[in-house]
Amino acid sequence: MEAYFDNSATTRVLDEVKDIVVKVMTEDYGNPSAKHRKGMEAEQYVRRAAEEVAKTLKVKEKEILFTSGGTESNNMALIGTAMANARAGKHIITTRIEHASVYNPMAFLEQQGFEVTYLHVDGQGHISLEELKQSLRPDTILVSVMYVNNEIGAVEPVEEIAALVHSTVPGAVFHVDAIQGYGKFRIRPKTQGIDLLSVSAHKIHGPKGIGFLYIDEKVKIKPILLGGGQQRGMRSGTENVPGIAGLGVAAREAYRDFDSKIAYITGLKDYLIDGLLGLEGVTVNSAKGDGGAPQIVSASFFGVRSEVLLHALEDKGIYVSSGSACSSNHPAISGTLRAIGVKKELLDSTLRFSFGMFNTREEIDYCIQVLGELLPVLRRYTRG
Amino acid sequence: MEAYFDNSATTRVLDEVKDIVVKVMTEDYGNPSAKHRKGMEAEQYVRRAAEEVAKTLKVKEKEILFTSGGTESNNMALIGTAMANARAGKHIITTRIEHASVYNPMAFLEQQGFEVTYLHVDGQGHISLEELKQSLRPDTILVSVMYVNNEIGAVEPVEEIAALVHSTVPGAVFHVDAIQGYGKFRIRPKTQGIDLLSVSAHKIHGPKGIGFLYIDEKVKIKPILLGGGQQRGMRSGTENVPGIAGLGVAAREAYRDFDSKIAYITGLKDYLIDGLLGLEGVTVNSAKGDGGAPQIVSASFFGVRSEVLLHALEDKGIYVSSGSACSSNHPAISGTLRAIGVKKELLDSTLRFSFGMFNTREEIDYCIQVLGELLPVLRRYTRG
Repeated sequence: MEAYFDNSATTRVLDEVKDIVVKVMTEDYGNPSAKHRKGMEAEQYVRRAAEEVAKTLKVKEKEILFTSGGTESNNMALIGTAMANARAGKHIITTRIEHASVYNPMAFLEQQGFEVTYLHVDGQGHISLEELKQSLRPDTILVSVMYVNNEIGAVEPVEEIAALVHSTVPGAVFHVDAIQGYGKFRIRPKTQGIDLLSVSAHKIHGPKGIGFLYIDEKVKIKPILLGGGQQRGMRSGTENVPGIAGLGVAAREAYRDFDSKIAYITGLKDYLIDGLLGLEGVTVNSAKGDGGAPQIVSASFFGVRSEVLLHALEDKGIYVSSGSACSSNHPAISGTLRAIGVKKELLDSTLRFSFGMFNTREEIDYCIQVLGELLPVLRRYTRG
Repeated sequence: MEAYFDNSATTRVLDEVKDIVVKVMTEDYGNPSAKHRKGMEAEQYVRRAAEEVAKTLKVKEKEILFTSGGTESNNMALIGTAMANARAGKHIITTRIEHASVYNPMAFLEQQGFEVTYLHVDGQGHISLEELKQSLRPDTILVSVMYVNNEIGAVEPVEEIAALVHSTVPGAVFHVDAIQGYGKFRIRPKTQGIDLLSVSAHKIHGPKGIGFLYIDEKVKIKPILLGGGQQRGMRSGTENVPGIAGLGVAAREAYRDFDSKIAYITGLKDYLIDGLLGLEGVTVNSAKGDGGAPQIVSASFFGVRSEVLLHALEDKGIYVSSGSACSSNHPAISGTLRAIGVKKELLDSTLRFSFGMFNTREEIDYCIQVLGELLPVLRRYTRG
């Protein structure tokens, strides 16, 4: 049996997504900037995708900017906003558990003379509204908090954060990295007070190399890729029409029968957590039910190194992640696990299981069975 | 009959490209950063593509950086190099006929305190080595010249430029925007003295949303997208594996049976030029044979507005471009046409025909026949 439990790293694309990507690559392959029919056709794909995406968020089409993925969305949100608002102030607030694509642009902005405050999180990975309140200043221009943490699935209180930010510093922009949240939560930027929202297609069964940044029409932001002036001058470069069309389909599908889909994935999560807690020496770092994101389970396995267990599972056809795949080129011990206070001896014994629409309960049964067999053996081996 | 003569705007992907994109999206869909087998498989696609691309240029695999396309490649080449070398000097040289994705980053760099010299071109669109020589200064850190002009197909003397730059200012970096040149010329960065080379996949029957920047290992350059540290920290973001794999195949195919392919496309070009010159009131702005790029023909039609002719041709199934599609959101009169001295009354009467591997002589026969019928009618209409 094969069980792919690494959907927060990336997902298999839906057949409907594959079909539209192929159609656009081989039949409707025009350049949206071209003035003839093939250009218009291509432009229609872009518009329709913007419409589909905008509908899922209840925002305007023109507030959707297509990018090459989550990293570009986050880079543009942070650097583009900081550069456009530097005269209003140079203070930025974020958290200690952001993804590297937020964290590293922040480090860059610090080099450029901005000051960044990093909020702590509690044992569940949640920031403190009180600490946020104390950190907000008249010169705060930007607050960036992720919707769902990619390592443990903690859900941040974005609505409360937005309310606090906007009431305390009316000019500040609130950015949400929703790369693990979009498709898993009903997100309403206009009512939740989110000004910028980063999304990646390949986390929701869409293509790699495409994503979007929602930009509230009132936000002042500068482009970071300059050239032919596509997308109203905000993101130059020939539009990745097959990718954009694929993203549109993936977005629509993610929110079709949304409640039953989320119930299904949450069911998988809770089923896995129950199974894990039935094994000896396993700690679960993620919350059951709607206490956390529906798709992510972080678990620590006492006395077993995560990389050893990852490869042992792999041999049985079970694919999981140690730390965040997105930053595994830098094999530092996870910042999130440390931030939530995971015991030192478990930091390097933690795996992430993450679900997508293709997973089944049978796969989880298989996984729990395999873990039940492997763990005692690996522990003996480690001690021996 | 349908004749797509807008291949310099974008191309239809090859079936081989489509096949690998589909395979990677639906079967081998892992994240290259993942530590398990599906991650390794994905990484192999990236490596193989880098190998294919490197082979076409006779450079090292690690000198190939995958980007989201030509615009990102040019932005990174210019902004990344300028930022990394600002201490050595703040002077940059480019030409007056660059693409907007070079021109606009240059304008940005000017705002950041860099000084940019814009070289003139002659009636054929070629820069003057003498003017370049006089423009080079001890504080020149970067020279950027396109391989092939996208509007008229002029080929710049990159080898001579490189020799002059490197002998005069040994520390200066030489960047070549080869977005219209790659796949049409045998490019050898190491022997031609090219330090950075920008390429886009969708101009060579590869996917949109993917490209690469060749970076000589000795060049000092900073990344412009920051995050998880993929591609050795030089371009963060989950690799667009389907796109990269597709680019690898497109690159390999572009250089397979290269001489016969180029002879074929050059034959189409010359055949069209001969046909155009047989019509009344038509001026050709591109050179026959190897006097210019094999795939681009710019022609001016006396007494007919380009947009009117473009749509009249479109009605007959013939797709061409007025100006450069890549910048047609900014409907300014072409800078290149003005720079080469096209007469004022012809500036807005110029079309670009550009060929790819799918075009045939029959399509050109059809196009010339249609033009022969349309031009007298449109001219009567204009004068009437």
